[in-house]
Amino acid sequence: MTQLQRRRIPDAAVARLPVYLQILNNLLATKVSRFSSDELAALAGVNAAKVRKDLSYLGSYGTRGVGYEVTYLIYQIKRELGLMREWNVVVVGAGNLGCALAKFGGFTPRGFPVVGICDNDPKKIGQTVGHLSVFDVCNLQKIVVELDVAIGAITTSTTSAQAAADALVDAGITSILNFAPIVLATPSSVSVRNVDLGVELQILSYYEQMRTEQHAPVG
Amino acid sequence: MTQLQRRRIPDAAVARLPVYLQILNNLLATKVSRFSSDELAALAGVNAAKVRKDLSYLGSYGTRGVGYEVTYLIYQIKRELGLMREWNVVVVGAGNLGCALAKFGGFTPRGFPVVGICDNDPKKIGQTVGHLSVFDVCNLQKIVVELDVAIGAITTSTTSAQAAADALVDAGITSILNFAPIVLATPSSVSVRNVDLGVELQILSYYEQMRTEQHAPVG
Repeated sequence: MTQLQRRRIPDAAVARLPVYLQILNNLLATKVSRFSSDELAALAGVNAAKVRKDLSYLGSYGTRGVGYEVTYLIYQIKRELGLMREWNVVVVGAGNLGCALAKFGGFTPRGFPVVGICDNDPKKIGQTVGHLSVFDVCNLQKIVVELDVAIGAITTSTTSAQAAADALVDAGITSILNFAPIVLATPSSVSVRNVDLGVELQILSYYEQMRTEQHAPVG
Repeated sequence: MTQLQRRRIPDAAVARLPVYLQILNNLLATKVSRFSSDELAALAGVNAAKVRKDLSYLGSYGTRGVGYEVTYLIYQIKRELGLMREWNVVVVGAGNLGCALAKFGGFTPRGFPVVGICDNDPKKIGQTVGHLSVFDVCNLQKIVVELDVAIGAITTSTTSAQAAADALVDAGITSILNFAPIVLATPSSVSVRNVDLGVELQILSYYEQMRTEQHAPVG
């Protein structure tokens, strides 16, 4: 597929493709070779019409009465998501979370090896984290080029996160995974995904409070 | 507000409330006391009509020409999200990510102290993680009651995640934050929020590939 043929997929559909991919990999592991859009929809918690529309962006339409083929759709989604190659990740912020990400072996098999970790704290620079040595954030630009880094993960404190984002952008990085609970200011050419665990906990506490109140005596 | 007065807020709106809360806390820190729905919409990346609708679920309608008051809206969102009290968290899986979460101090000020961490690996049980000692997952039910745990975080390997979820549900937990890249099977009475960092990375790689292709020579 050349760039001229490739259509831009709506953001919401892009965000569902990794979920489908995960389900398809699970199906493949259980020796399922074909599936219907209804089955995938049920597993993904999405309606079937939306699944068919999403897959149509890949050029996959299924066959009436036969459905979709698992291995071919896995190939199509991986191609579309850019998973036919690896994307190197650098972690900015060598605190607890940053070190955990650097040591976590689970990203490499999914195509996202963490190749570097940096900090601005002289006490942390030079320390060993897994198989990496913490480098000085001042050298970020050099490291990004040398190690062919595509993605930066920000695991600094909230107060340092914007400076970390600025350093990544200056180093030429255009994809940022941000764990700090702030909205980063970045050029529109940069993609930012925010992972705020506090937000997830607050959503859970909303429902937990609802349940608690349902069991409380009426006041 | 008694349970009879409380309306159920749509899930999508619930998920936006923590984002508004974060923005409002930032506004408060910069001494802003009033804001318009247009301003909040711009900061949250949501359209203004949706912001007004979301805030109307809290009983907040703003005043024409005056807008909303920051401190009162913070109070309303915190009350709605169940943040007027703490919710204790237990971590299941004392690997890199689990230990990082247990040591991370950032959840306590947001009302979600991690009060325990457990594993099924005899080599990990009894080890110290931050100020906690890893306990045997067999004792989960006892610990949940003793420590008044409301939320379970699953940081096991993918293959152990369903067993971890079953153990949490058996222990009476109805709110789960799942970091393992699988769709957990849980009773409908249980709320699950999935944080799959691989999914976030795959979404970034989609856009990164798009950018790379734009700069590549036409084939």
